[in-house]
Amino acid sequence: MGDEDNLKGEQAFKNSYVPKWTNQITIRSVITSFILSIVFNFIVCKLNFSTGIIPSLNVAAGLLGFAVIKAYTALLHKCGLLKQPFTRQENTVIQTCIVASSGIAFSSGTGSYLLAMSPYISGQVGGGGDMPINTKVLSLGWMMGFLFVVSFVGLFSIMPLRKLMILKYKLTYPSGTATAHLLNSLHTPKGAKLAKKQVAMLFKSFLGSFSFGFFQWFFNGGDGCGFSSFPTFGLQAFKQKFYFDFSCTYVGVGMICPYIINISLLLGSIISWGVMWPLIEQKKGVWYSAGLSPTSLSGIQGYRVFGAIAMMLGDGLYHCISMLLQVAYSLKLQYSQKNEVASSVNPEGDDYQIAEVDYDVERRTEYFLKDQIPNWVACSGYVVLAAVSIVTVSHIFPPLKWYHVLVAYLIAPVLAFCNAYGCGLTDWSLASNYGKIAIIIFSSWVGLPNGGVLAGLVSCGVMMSIVSTASDLMQDFKTGYLTLASPRSMFLSQVIGTAMGCIMSPLIFWFFYNAYKLGDPTGAYPAPYAQVYRGIALLGAKGFSSLPKHCLTLAIILFCTSVLINMIHDLLMHYETKYKIHRYIPNPMALAIPFYLGGYFAIDMCIGSLILFIWEKKSKQNSKDFAPALASGLICGDSLWSVPAAILSLAGAQSPICMKFLSAPMNLKVDKFLSGE
Amino acid sequence: MGDEDNLKGEQAFKNSYVPKWTNQITIRSVITSFILSIVFNFIVCKLNFSTGIIPSLNVAAGLLGFAVIKAYTALLHKCGLLKQPFTRQENTVIQTCIVASSGIAFSSGTGSYLLAMSPYISGQVGGGGDMPINTKVLSLGWMMGFLFVVSFVGLFSIMPLRKLMILKYKLTYPSGTATAHLLNSLHTPKGAKLAKKQVAMLFKSFLGSFSFGFFQWFFNGGDGCGFSSFPTFGLQAFKQKFYFDFSCTYVGVGMICPYIINISLLLGSIISWGVMWPLIEQKKGVWYSAGLSPTSLSGIQGYRVFGAIAMMLGDGLYHCISMLLQVAYSLKLQYSQKNEVASSVNPEGDDYQIAEVDYDVERRTEYFLKDQIPNWVACSGYVVLAAVSIVTVSHIFPPLKWYHVLVAYLIAPVLAFCNAYGCGLTDWSLASNYGKIAIIIFSSWVGLPNGGVLAGLVSCGVMMSIVSTASDLMQDFKTGYLTLASPRSMFLSQVIGTAMGCIMSPLIFWFFYNAYKLGDPTGAYPAPYAQVYRGIALLGAKGFSSLPKHCLTLAIILFCTSVLINMIHDLLMHYETKYKIHRYIPNPMALAIPFYLGGYFAIDMCIGSLILFIWEKKSKQNSKDFAPALASGLICGDSLWSVPAAILSLAGAQSPICMKFLSAPMNLKVDKFLSGE
Repeated sequence: MGDEDNLKGEQAFKNSYVPKWTNQITIRSVITSFILSIVFNFIVCKLNFSTGIIPSLNVAAGLLGFAVIKAYTALLHKCGLLKQPFTRQENTVIQTCIVASSGIAFSSGTGSYLLAMSPYISGQVGGGGDMPINTKVLSLGWMMGFLFVVSFVGLFSIMPLRKLMILKYKLTYPSGTATAHLLNSLHTPKGAKLAKKQVAMLFKSFLGSFSFGFFQWFFNGGDGCGFSSFPTFGLQAFKQKFYFDFSCTYVGVGMICPYIINISLLLGSIISWGVMWPLIEQKKGVWYSAGLSPTSLSGIQGYRVFGAIAMMLGDGLYHCISMLLQVAYSLKLQYSQKNEVASSVNPEGDDYQIAEVDYDVERRTEYFLKDQIPNWVACSGYVVLAAVSIVTVSHIFPPLKWYHVLVAYLIAPVLAFCNAYGCGLTDWSLASNYGKIAIIIFSSWVGLPNGGVLAGLVSCGVMMSIVSTASDLMQDFKTGYLTLASPRSMFLSQVIGTAMGCIMSPLIFWFFYNAYKLGDPTGAYPAPYAQVYRGIALLGAKGFSSLPKHCLTLAIILFCTSVLINMIHDLLMHYETKYKIHRYIPNPMALAIPFYLGGYFAIDMCIGSLILFIWEKKSKQNSKDFAPALASGLICGDSLWSVPAAILSLAGAQSPICMKFLSAPMNLKVDKFLSGE
Repeated sequence: MGDEDNLKGEQAFKNSYVPKWTNQITIRSVITSFILSIVFNFIVCKLNFSTGIIPSLNVAAGLLGFAVIKAYTALLHKCGLLKQPFTRQENTVIQTCIVASSGIAFSSGTGSYLLAMSPYISGQVGGGGDMPINTKVLSLGWMMGFLFVVSFVGLFSIMPLRKLMILKYKLTYPSGTATAHLLNSLHTPKGAKLAKKQVAMLFKSFLGSFSFGFFQWFFNGGDGCGFSSFPTFGLQAFKQKFYFDFSCTYVGVGMICPYIINISLLLGSIISWGVMWPLIEQKKGVWYSAGLSPTSLSGIQGYRVFGAIAMMLGDGLYHCISMLLQVAYSLKLQYSQKNEVASSVNPEGDDYQIAEVDYDVERRTEYFLKDQIPNWVACSGYVVLAAVSIVTVSHIFPPLKWYHVLVAYLIAPVLAFCNAYGCGLTDWSLASNYGKIAIIIFSSWVGLPNGGVLAGLVSCGVMMSIVSTASDLMQDFKTGYLTLASPRSMFLSQVIGTAMGCIMSPLIFWFFYNAYKLGDPTGAYPAPYAQVYRGIALLGAKGFSSLPKHCLTLAIILFCTSVLINMIHDLLMHYETKYKIHRYIPNPMALAIPFYLGGYFAIDMCIGSLILFIWEKKSKQNSKDFAPALASGLICGDSLWSVPAAILSLAGAQSPICMKFLSAPMNLKVDKFLSGE
């Protein structure tokens, strides 16, 4: 963030004041966090319901938090009422709180495992899992209760290990480090100047994106109407879900995601919707019954869902195992090196000079150790919360017995540690992979007649919450370490954020749930992961018998392909360092997502990539400084338009115009019909 | 064009060689002119048929001519085959030839008086003028013949006066001077560098605009389908012709036209389609019969057409009279000053130093006087051509007797002189105004039963051709004077260009005429001036009895308003020089154009203005350098797409998709109808 000139680590902040931990969490920071949490919860929920692809919103959260408080303090300063200056520690606390609460929006599974329990999705998926014992009618009450009991456990699970991971292992946590750099640079004069321009860019693109969303709304008056049904590449391609749907959100997401992810998505959609599904559809009536509903997992939809599941599981399993091996190897290495001087590798990866690093490390360690959280608090917290959770969860979901939950809570801390450690190394949280594996294990343990599908989905929630919260916490501790924020204020801010998330996430879900038909594959919010997660649970509970003909073969091929691609990628990364071919190996997870959804959002995202590519070619620095702000603005604007849009939909207001796309012969008929009136 | 640094008038070309006049017109220049003439003829024809608003395409012609020959000579130079270097004189010759031939595309009236003769337009307009004697079936043969006999006369009409106007009166000819500056700067090293970038910009926007035209085509599969029917501001506004029709052409035109013109167009469309027509439509059945066809001039269309005519005539008459007064005053001034030193006012309006001006003037005068064209050639040319024309025209159009044409040819040189002189002062050619007045005079002279409508339209052609060609010629002589091009080569190039135009213009018209229903008010090519010109002729032949009820009152009010606005503008311009309020007085002609067409193209043009405005705010120099190139590219790309589009239409190919816009309730009906199949 342009910190070469006037920012050299902590030297830049040598004379600046670090407030007490109780002054790092202020009322204004909590209020700001609350407002921005709502914003980001909406964004994450919308993304969850539309494709399930959620980019890192850290930059947006950091910038917006900064902008809000800065505007507020500037105002107070003008009135002479400013008592406490705005510090980077306070900014870190806000950022942490927002990330924690929007993290819940993801791990609460309103777009995946929770929605998958609903009778609507269950009816769509079918496959013998749609009896009452395997479904649960969604209601606000139990959802909030469930989230409260499972979400806080994660915070306590690996807190005692924070010193180990951050001070001793010196794990990188790339996102956390990047966020800290952003926050540090925001609080230098040069950084603040750039930030002002970035915020201006963010607001401009926010307004543009919001207005465009508003404009689009007027043309949505009916099914298959509007910009989101624009057959950009022709009607034939549109049927195969290849079109540009004018979604600013995913153009923005495409600008944030790496090129290879977007290309992989496009490739995946071409392979699946361009080749595989058309071929399988020719076997209609042979491989699967022709009379099935189009959403039934026993029909063509089954190939799509289980194909995606196979690739995702292959990818997840490979990563879990590879991560475990990596963690083990790295711990062994740490252990054998423990007597050597540790600072040979710079933890931030920047080329600070040694003297500065030493000063930085010293000062950061000092503040990191200043406000302790006793280990007994953490341990007893975990035990008490786990006990409460065991009782409550098995009460809410009868198929999941108390011993099932107990087992989950026994394994969870180990997985949480692995994930937090792996995330520190690679920046990759595998929470949803652990969740998927938990589904398979628990649903097959409980069995279909005893409610195995439901049990699997619940266990996924339990597991995912712990694992994901733990790695988020550690990520944030790293940020706090680098900005001298107190661990105590960080922890408290996490707790507050989590609590906010547990309340907001179900509320926002409920809002969308009432306004739209969530999970309708042809609607605006297909919530693809709901079907996928239920499919996994069905697979676990029923075994392979739930698959249509030849689907198992396809799934096995895709599973192996996925593992193979990962292996090739890792091998190339280790042994072919000259041309770095590994950068061009597609990502199996990204290949799998469009299997179910089709290519339209991949096209949006590739357009985002294209914009970024041209921009980078024109001016590298300019794109680096402003592309994240532009992208964040696009995402925020379009996503927040979904709030008034949902309100309009709840109020029964309909768009006045339908922009319809008809083939020319069809249009002739319609014209004749209209003129005949 | 950035000529401060290394270009000071003719000093910059002190050592450069000026080829002989026969070497200024080369085979390569004629071929280039021919190709680009086709391009520009297409563009002008398309503009004629869609709105009749034609911006100055001089910059585009200059740049493209330069780019083509430069590419060609660079290629030859590489092969070692280049015999003659590319000079600015050659460039001037190309430019002149293109402007002459595309000038014919305008003055040939394929979008106005010629089309107005056709039975189709005549049937639309009705009003008692639709008997065979007042119409003429269009055919290629007589159109070419007619154009050949009337177009060349203008070249000879005021040629003898060139020395008077350019050397003695030192008239400015702003467009001609600007073109000369462009051509001069293109041939300096710095100018050539900038030109390269400008050409790159032009090609980029050309490609973008062409591709967008191509893309749009796919969605045009039916009446009222596609981007050109996009109800951007809602269906209600669309009915009143307020929408953005995604026409790159008019966005580009808007970037070239002054802000006040675009604002006037918008204002005119709001006043007419937003207020006046809706009010008049409430009187349907009272003021005019409700059962009339929607194109009949006796109905609502009459108010539109005659309203526009009244404003245009008011504006035209005011300008003609004011121009005559100005010319008379200026000549009187010239006469009284003839013994004083003439160079107190710099002819180019630049702040060259006196020494340089003297050197410039000396050198330019030398070359301007070098190759003479004897006056007897000009005079006898005019007489012979006029005689041929009198015989031919009265033969082709029986209602127009030989003495009518003779009278026209007697008045014409005077008007041609006035127009050329006025154009030199104000850059404003009033050719079409003289044409309109000619219609009124001749059609009332001949009278309706004797074919007065047809006679009026023909006389308009005769008059417009002479007047417009004469001022174009003088404009080009000025350019030639400033680039040291020989008057002889300029004249020859004009003759060649005119001949090209006389052949191309009818051919291209014929191409469009067969591919589309030209003049259909609801189609893609409404050719508004065809109705307007026929309306004027009808007014002349029949008098005010052809108007629907209260239309005369409206017309008189509009006529007076138009004169009044012009008077206010001129008074403010002379007496209020502090705030220059006159810049904010709308232009009556621009106010009148949307009366008939509606506001859609005004919105396109205002968007062009908006883009330019933001661009100018961001970077003045950048926008000055590249906006004309961008705009030219937009116009060229979209207009040239009309060639393949017309070919597709001729071949009977239909767009595969119809993008249709239905109101939400209508859409419900259509959906029911479609699902009921």
